[in-house]
Amino acid sequence: MLNVRIVLLVLGLLLIVEAVFMLITAGVSAIYGEYDLPYFLWSALICISTGGILFGANMKVPRSIGKREGYVIVTMVWIVFSFFGLLPFWLSKAIPSFTDAFFETMSGFTTTGSSILEDIEALPHGILFWRSIIQWLGGMGIIVLSLAILPVLGVGGMQLFVAEVPGPVPDKLHPRIADTAKRLWGIYVVYTLVETILLWIGGMTFFDAICHSFTTMATGGYSTKQASVAYFDSAFIQYVIIIFMFVAGVNFTLSYSAFNGKFMRIIKDEEFKYYTGFVLVTTILVAVVLYVSGGDSSVEKSFRDALFQVVSLITTTGYATADYLVWVPTLAIVMFMLMFVGGSAGSTGGGIKVMRIVILLKNAYYELRRLIHPNAVIPVRYNSKAVSSTVVTNVLAFIVIYMLIVGISMIIMSIMGYNLDTSIGAVATCIGNIGPGLGEVGPAANFAHIPDFGKWFLSLLMLIGRLEIFTVVLLFSPYFWRN
Amino acid sequence: MLNVRIVLLVLGLLLIVEAVFMLITAGVSAIYGEYDLPYFLWSALICISTGGILFGANMKVPRSIGKREGYVIVTMVWIVFSFFGLLPFWLSKAIPSFTDAFFETMSGFTTTGSSILEDIEALPHGILFWRSIIQWLGGMGIIVLSLAILPVLGVGGMQLFVAEVPGPVPDKLHPRIADTAKRLWGIYVVYTLVETILLWIGGMTFFDAICHSFTTMATGGYSTKQASVAYFDSAFIQYVIIIFMFVAGVNFTLSYSAFNGKFMRIIKDEEFKYYTGFVLVTTILVAVVLYVSGGDSSVEKSFRDALFQVVSLITTTGYATADYLVWVPTLAIVMFMLMFVGGSAGSTGGGIKVMRIVILLKNAYYELRRLIHPNAVIPVRYNSKAVSSTVVTNVLAFIVIYMLIVGISMIIMSIMGYNLDTSIGAVATCIGNIGPGLGEVGPAANFAHIPDFGKWFLSLLMLIGRLEIFTVVLLFSPYFWRN
Repeated sequence: MLNVRIVLLVLGLLLIVEAVFMLITAGVSAIYGEYDLPYFLWSALICISTGGILFGANMKVPRSIGKREGYVIVTMVWIVFSFFGLLPFWLSKAIPSFTDAFFETMSGFTTTGSSILEDIEALPHGILFWRSIIQWLGGMGIIVLSLAILPVLGVGGMQLFVAEVPGPVPDKLHPRIADTAKRLWGIYVVYTLVETILLWIGGMTFFDAICHSFTTMATGGYSTKQASVAYFDSAFIQYVIIIFMFVAGVNFTLSYSAFNGKFMRIIKDEEFKYYTGFVLVTTILVAVVLYVSGGDSSVEKSFRDALFQVVSLITTTGYATADYLVWVPTLAIVMFMLMFVGGSAGSTGGGIKVMRIVILLKNAYYELRRLIHPNAVIPVRYNSKAVSSTVVTNVLAFIVIYMLIVGISMIIMSIMGYNLDTSIGAVATCIGNIGPGLGEVGPAANFAHIPDFGKWFLSLLMLIGRLEIFTVVLLFSPYFWRN
Repeated sequence: MLNVRIVLLVLGLLLIVEAVFMLITAGVSAIYGEYDLPYFLWSALICISTGGILFGANMKVPRSIGKREGYVIVTMVWIVFSFFGLLPFWLSKAIPSFTDAFFETMSGFTTTGSSILEDIEALPHGILFWRSIIQWLGGMGIIVLSLAILPVLGVGGMQLFVAEVPGPVPDKLHPRIADTAKRLWGIYVVYTLVETILLWIGGMTFFDAICHSFTTMATGGYSTKQASVAYFDSAFIQYVIIIFMFVAGVNFTLSYSAFNGKFMRIIKDEEFKYYTGFVLVTTILVAVVLYVSGGDSSVEKSFRDALFQVVSLITTTGYATADYLVWVPTLAIVMFMLMFVGGSAGSTGGGIKVMRIVILLKNAYYELRRLIHPNAVIPVRYNSKAVSSTVVTNVLAFIVIYMLIVGISMIIMSIMGYNLDTSIGAVATCIGNIGPGLGEVGPAANFAHIPDFGKWFLSLLMLIGRLEIFTVVLLFSPYFWRN
């Protein structure tokens, strides 16, 4: 039996946390003296009262959270946060449509960054700040989810990380979560502060600096400008953002190692090696083709545009300084393929994750050896350890379900009248938590024209992708509800 | 050390077989008294003399064929057959370009069916017959390859079939090949004869009937008409072809069971169940959308067009009675996705194969159960037997390499200036041994406009796909050449 009351208790508690961030945003509105202030206060009040009731009514429930409760809480948090988080957008009429407001909020909390807004600069500062801070909050959630909760739940190879931190028994998640959260959120906050200062030095207003810093570290991609980062025509700003997007796409336990001076752990980490190598090789290829095909005039600009777009897509941030759809077809295809890579496991990045792709590629390569020596046991090795076949089949299941969802979703999008490019682009970018797609949802376009049904559907994809597929899919499985 | 001389011996022997079929085709030319007769005789002479020299010079070599020799022979046969098989096309100037002639021949032997011809009806009967018979020969080769050779070589889950036939030791392939070949080729010939008679009764000329029967059973898709099967505006002919395409896409050991009255084995076979179910469900979906969207006027026509196109693509035949690119986008996307399914293992169909997809889907579904019961050992079951994790990781490796090749090849095609649709369509159709693709290589178009480099590259993809990926990829692996 699912312990529903503990689920409600946790949700109630977290709603109060959401309210705190609404009040902080209300402070921003107050500073600028804009019309959105009362709506943040109302929204916070609704969150606090709902949260308080849920918390109060279930306070005395036994505090045991098992695997089932874990899956349900993780999924419900994102849904509940989005329904309450849309209040400031909707009540203030900054986003008059309820569907649009939900889409924008879910896109925020899942750090996707796909937007329905067509004139971002027209919005008050509070609303822009709220857009940024929900991504930052989502990023915080993901760090804990991917490094503390999912490994224990055994999702998609994430248990590879369990060995790294001495782990509690699976049905007592709490001690690990609290411990991990404290250590990693500290790093997240430090990175955010440093980036804010650097962007400010680089010429952004302090407001733009902090908003972009929030959405960089979350690999979210919401900008305070309709033209995204292309608005800031400064090589310094763009390189700063590249560096922090790159860092946000690295496993946060490696950042923890770095903060403790253990640089060897970073250099030895296989996922980091492949992630860095992949970014470099792809960037060089793209830069060369971009320069040769005359897309950019100077070598530095070609390199910067290539690096920015590659890092933005592979980390699933989704900022743009150029529209890859106007580049030669080859580059658009490369950019499209990057949407399926994703950041490192344990980062704020979405997508399939470098770790999983490395395991799949290694398994494929080792299979060649196995064919020649059919009697030898040749396990896949990852970070110098043999990976059990359980983990390999788990990663396999992840990829298959991911691709299956992409395939079915493409068909659903196409039924709404979109062509192959737009359908697959919208689906890939939403399930990968990236932001821009292809065709009519490319970097220079937005999601406003998608019908309401499509917006709800894409919101679901964002959630499924953000929660590493299994967490949500499992809830629809009969196994889950059987005792 | 690779036993090169035994490789040459086998190739020599097979070249003589190819010559025999050239002489048969010369007979067809003689009947019609057309200009291509001498070119078939010359080509046969070249094959016989080369084959004779290779055979004679290596006759006394020890007859041991190990795994390595197996991989090399299998790959070389298709390459050598294509280089000699192009002679009638090229010498007769029916296809003046050497590259085009090679593409057309490789597309034939691999039963792909992608063509560079722009006016098929202008060609003499001998040439049209040769196009058809090389597909039929390729089909014969595939049956033996997939049911006798690859299971022993352990490629991509094919070893699941080893249990079915009591097997010889891996380094003595010969007895199994001969035995399997005799039993299955008999069935292949019977099917071909029955289809020929039915098509003839249905109103085709005897020549058209036998040519289409050859290319149906091979799931090849070469037609004697530029408009493909659409030319024969007869429901009877189209349903006959549908039935035989469907049968050709079934594992030939099941046909063997049927010929021996063991119908229970067919009904119990999981791959057959999924294959049939998949065809039915997809056909109904496509038919409904086609009818509702006004693509076809009558219900019967909608159903027939849907069924024909679905069966043609899933079996990787590639005949067309309609251009799915002019259908609504949803249907084009469904058709595109069918290109990745493929026929059953042990059929003449290409693609990924239903069996592999079933294993992947089952593994994904079982993973949900494993997440809930992490300590239980829950293996994938296939045909009521537990599938070892070795087979699952083997299938996984197959899919990953398949998709990796598709991805890289898309980029290579796009460098030649093709857009996303055409690039991915050309690659998917060639590696899947289907025939028509998307965009500029759709069912109403052809491959003539592809640059020479692209034709050689796509020919390589056909070969890689036809030989179940590993057979070719392994030859490029250092493991293979190491002792």
